[in-house]
Amino acid sequence: VTFDLVLVGFGNVARRFVGLLHERRTILERDHQVSARVVGIVTRRHGQMFSLKGIDAVAVARRVERGESIQPPALSSVEFVRDAARRSATAAHERRLVVVETTTLDIARGEPAIAHVRAALSGGAHVITANKGPAAFAYHALAREANRANRRFLFEGAVMDGIPIFNLVRETLPAVAITGFRGVVNSTTNFMLTAMEQGRSFEDALAEMQARGIAEADPTLDIDGWDAAAKTAALANVLLGARLTPRTVKRQGITPDSRRQALEARAAGRRVKLVARVDRDGRRITASVAPESLPENDLLAGLEGQQNAIIFRTDLLDEIAVVQRGGSLTQTAYALVSDLVTIARENVVSRAVAVRRKTTRAIRRSRS
Amino acid sequence: VTFDLVLVGFGNVARRFVGLLHERRTILERDHQVSARVVGIVTRRHGQMFSLKGIDAVAVARRVERGESIQPPALSSVEFVRDAARRSATAAHERRLVVVETTTLDIARGEPAIAHVRAALSGGAHVITANKGPAAFAYHALAREANRANRRFLFEGAVMDGIPIFNLVRETLPAVAITGFRGVVNSTTNFMLTAMEQGRSFEDALAEMQARGIAEADPTLDIDGWDAAAKTAALANVLLGARLTPRTVKRQGITPDSRRQALEARAAGRRVKLVARVDRDGRRITASVAPESLPENDLLAGLEGQQNAIIFRTDLLDEIAVVQRGGSLTQTAYALVSDLVTIARENVVSRAVAVRRKTTRAIRRSRS
Repeated sequence: VTFDLVLVGFGNVARRFVGLLHERRTILERDHQVSARVVGIVTRRHGQMFSLKGIDAVAVARRVERGESIQPPALSSVEFVRDAARRSATAAHERRLVVVETTTLDIARGEPAIAHVRAALSGGAHVITANKGPAAFAYHALAREANRANRRFLFEGAVMDGIPIFNLVRETLPAVAITGFRGVVNSTTNFMLTAMEQGRSFEDALAEMQARGIAEADPTLDIDGWDAAAKTAALANVLLGARLTPRTVKRQGITPDSRRQALEARAAGRRVKLVARVDRDGRRITASVAPESLPENDLLAGLEGQQNAIIFRTDLLDEIAVVQRGGSLTQTAYALVSDLVTIARENVVSRAVAVRRKTTRAIRRSRS
Repeated sequence: VTFDLVLVGFGNVARRFVGLLHERRTILERDHQVSARVVGIVTRRHGQMFSLKGIDAVAVARRVERGESIQPPALSSVEFVRDAARRSATAAHERRLVVVETTTLDIARGEPAIAHVRAALSGGAHVITANKGPAAFAYHALAREANRANRRFLFEGAVMDGIPIFNLVRETLPAVAITGFRGVVNSTTNFMLTAMEQGRSFEDALAEMQARGIAEADPTLDIDGWDAAAKTAALANVLLGARLTPRTVKRQGITPDSRRQALEARAAGRRVKLVARVDRDGRRITASVAPESLPENDLLAGLEGQQNAIIFRTDLLDEIAVVQRGGSLTQTAYALVSDLVTIARENVVSRAVAVRRKTTRAIRRSRS
C-alpha cells in the first residue's frame, strides 16, 4: 500500500517522522509492504499546503527549520483536515488516507486535537497521533467513531514514545486483563529529581530539560504533573476501560522543595519518584500522580535521568514491567511509523474480506 | 475457529494449558474467535490416546494426576504425531490442526522435540511449543519448513514463560533491528543467588526450587547454565538471525562457591547474577552465559527471587527492558494460549486470501 498522509502539526516529531519514513523506506516496503507520501501539511505558524501529486516533505521540513513559511494559511486546521479528506476521496475509500496528528497537548480539553481526529474519521481517514489529549479526554467516544467509520484511531506515541505499550497489550496479551499499574511516565520530572538528588537546583535542572527540547513547550505541564496525568488517563481509559480525564486524576507535581525531599530520601537509602498509579477495586478505578519516596530496590527507584517504566498488574501473568532506557525524538516519531504498519496489516484483512464479499455477490449474480 | 489439538507431552505445563483454555473459553471465543478441543494426547509414561470425537482433557489430566495411565502406548511419540495428522487430514487441510509440544528439554540435540515439530509440519499441522530445544538447535531449518508448509511454528513460552518476548519483537517493533541483549533468564539460579546472598546454602536453596517444581527435572540444566544457554541461543537465532546452539554459547554456571562470591559482592554493594549476553560485531555474533558482579543500580541487579529480565539493544529505540516480576506454571501455559491466538489471527488472513483465489477462479469459470 502507498498511504497518503495529511500531517496536522509539523513540529519536531512530525519532521522526524517524515525523515524516518524516508530512511527506513526500503525495509518498510520489503518487510511490511508499507510506503507513504505526504499530500497535506497544516501548521500553526508556518502555513499550510496540499497537493494530490504529493509533497516533498523532507524538503519542506528543511524550509520550516530555516524559519520559512510554506504557504499562507487559508483554512483553520480542522477545516483543512475536512478539505484534505474530500480532495483525497479515492485514497480515503481505498483505506489509504491517514491523518497524522502531532499538535501539542491542550490540557484544558484536548482540543483542537479531538476535533482533528473527528474530522479525519468522518472523512474516511485513519488517524495516528502522538498527542495524549484525544485518548486522555475522549478515548471511548473516538474509539466508537473509528469503529463506526471502519477506520483506525491509534496513538502508540502518547505514552513512553516508541516503546510499544498499547500494542503490547493489544497484540501480545490476548485474554489477559490489566488490573492496574504504577509507573514513571514523565521524563522531565524524572531527570529533574535525579539531578536534584545529586545536588543540582530545580531551576538549573529544568533549564537543561528545556534547552534539550525534552520539557513540554509549557514546562508547567511537566512540573505540575499534567503530562503524567494525561498519560495516566489515556492508559487507564484504554487498558482498564476507565472513563478518566487528566482532571479526574488526583495530581501532585514537583516543586523547588522536592530537592530537599529528594536529598533526604537519598541519604536514607531511598529515592523520590513522580509515580503514576491506577488501581481497580471492583468497578471503581482510582488514579493518581504524586511524588513518592521508594525503597532503593524498587524497580522504579532505579530509573535514572529520563528513563521511564510501567509495571502492569495482570490477572494471569502477575506483574510485567516495561522499561524505556533511552528516549529521543526518533522514538516518538517511530511510534507513528509503527502505527502506520499496524494499519497496513489490518488493511490486508479488511481488503481480503471485502473482496470475498464482492466476489461472492458477483458469483450469485452470474448464476442468476 | 475450533482448533483440534494434539498434545505431545502431558506434564504440568500441558495440563495447566488445558485447564486455562477451559477457564478462559468464554473470552477466547468472544474476543478472539478461538475455541479448541483435544483430539490426541501422547505421554512418555502415561500412555497415549486419540479420538476424532474429542477427548475430555480436563478429566484425563485429573486421571494422570492420580497416577493412572490413559491407554497403553502403541506408537512412538513421533509416529503418534504422524498418525494423528493423517487421521486429522480434514482439520489439517482447514488449518485447524495444532500440535502442542511440551516435552522436556534435551540439551544434547533438542530431540525428540525437533522430530515432533517436523512430523507435525509435514502433516499440515501448526506447532506451538514451550520447549526451548527446537528454536535453540534448529530455528532456521524449522522456520523454513514451516514456511514451505504454510503453517506456523511458534514458541513464545520458550523464554520468560508467558511474557511476550518473541511476539513483542515480531508484532510491535516493525522495522526495528535488535542489535544485542543482556538478561537474567533462568529463575532457579536467580532464586538461588538471591537466597545465598542472604546466607542460605547452595543445597538448601536448590532443594527449595526442586520442591516447588521450578527447577528443571535435571537440576544441572539450571545450575550449569544449560537452560540459560538454550534460551540465549533461541533468542539470538530468532531475533538476531544467529546460528547458535546451546553448545556454542560460552557457558559458566553457578557452584557452591558462588555463595561466597554472592556474599562478598553484596558486602561491597554489588550483586552476582547469572547474565546472558549476546552482542553483534558486524556479522559476528557472540553469546555467553556467566555469573557477573553487577553494581546495585543495574536493572538486572535488582531482580529478586525468580524474577527475570531482558534488556534489548535496538538500532532505533535505544534500550528496552522487559521484566517478569512473577513466574508460574500458568504463565508458561498462557504462552501456548497466546500462540494459539496468533495462529487464529493469521488464519483469518490466509482463509480470506484463499477464498478470494477460489471465488476469482469460480467467476472465471462461470464466464467462460
